[in-house]
Amino acid sequence: MAEARFERRLPRMRRVINEVEFWFEYGSTYSYLTVTRISSLAEARGVEISWRPFLLMPILIERGMEKGPFLPYPDKLRYMWRDLERRARRHGLPYRRPSIYPPNTLLTARIGYLGQTEGWCAAFTQEAFRLHWTEDIMIGSDENISRSLACAGQDANRVLKLAQSDENKTGLRRQTERAKALGIFGSPTFVIGDELFWGDDRLDDALEFHL
Amino acid sequence: MAEARFERRLPRMRRVINEVEFWFEYGSTYSYLTVTRISSLAEARGVEISWRPFLLMPILIERGMEKGPFLPYPDKLRYMWRDLERRARRHGLPYRRPSIYPPNTLLTARIGYLGQTEGWCAAFTQEAFRLHWTEDIMIGSDENISRSLACAGQDANRVLKLAQSDENKTGLRRQTERAKALGIFGSPTFVIGDELFWGDDRLDDALEFHL
Repeated sequence: MAEARFERRLPRMRRVINEVEFWFEYGSTYSYLTVTRISSLAEARGVEISWRPFLLMPILIERGMEKGPFLPYPDKLRYMWRDLERRARRHGLPYRRPSIYPPNTLLTARIGYLGQTEGWCAAFTQEAFRLHWTEDIMIGSDENISRSLACAGQDANRVLKLAQSDENKTGLRRQTERAKALGIFGSPTFVIGDELFWGDDRLDDALEFHL
Repeated sequence: MAEARFERRLPRMRRVINEVEFWFEYGSTYSYLTVTRISSLAEARGVEISWRPFLLMPILIERGMEKGPFLPYPDKLRYMWRDLERRARRHGLPYRRPSIYPPNTLLTARIGYLGQTEGWCAAFTQEAFRLHWTEDIMIGSDENISRSLACAGQDANRVLKLAQSDENKTGLRRQTERAKALGIFGSPTFVIGDELFWGDDRLDDALEFHL
């Protein structure tokens, strides 16, 4: 009897303990690897993921990185593209280098934030990244947005109106401020309590971390 | 008979194909993880490692990063220390945060370069990092240098004289220029032909890469 009670309680305990916040910027290249992998990896480990879109550029601009982490450094930029392609292959993910970098991500981030508040952020985001990274349909473009919303089962007219509302804009701005307050300086970043894990190459560490 | 000949030839073929250049800066924090792990991991895979000490700061200064990759950013610096400690634990490595950062690595790099030309760079470097990262005996200090040289079976008087010679200084400078020409911008970096892998978290990728 006692054992049966314990087993019934276990799923609820695990749900509370193993929750990982997944903070990401839509223009981040390495975040493609995470957006594509995180749901299945988390499910296999019984971890719940809270999707947290934010804007990375305001944080980078405060650090004097107006052009982002790669564009000022041709060698690092070249390395990033090669490394990304190799990592995608290593993880068995489709990969086609987008023709434009970086994309304009403001509207997509606003939509993603609305999706977070309404519960369809993951579905929208996964499709947005998939179109960008496998079909060269750029994040931020009308086609990317409309197809990603359709994939998430959302009406584009309704969503675009709400996404551009003052309330939603302020919500995304506050979320970006919270990212900064947490000490986030790159994407993807995983947050568990006070612990930060930065980079797709820390996804396993984050999912296996226990407070 | 044919099979026996093939087996005799195999080690030589593997040696030619699987050689990884390991480029590192003595002041690099994450390089501790690699210096400590690389020999056994490479041996298990039949990969030969060529140790290539260089000076990272001249490369970073050209990029406008006079203070290195972490010091200008308190949040990134704090994250680095926490991440490093977690990664050391994950790899089962001893770890004690050094009281001074960054160390002055010029003399140690000159000695390491001499060791490369004479064949004792790995032994010297592993002990130098071990003392720095487990006993807080700082890289660049007299004690670190003398104990690391003793560990590598080298006479300190002889080595210090040769390490400070014009020929050896020029050799290290040229090696640093070659690092830059290869597109290296951080430590550790692994080079296989034209392929670069940056970061301790790419060590497995590098060792498993085949041209």
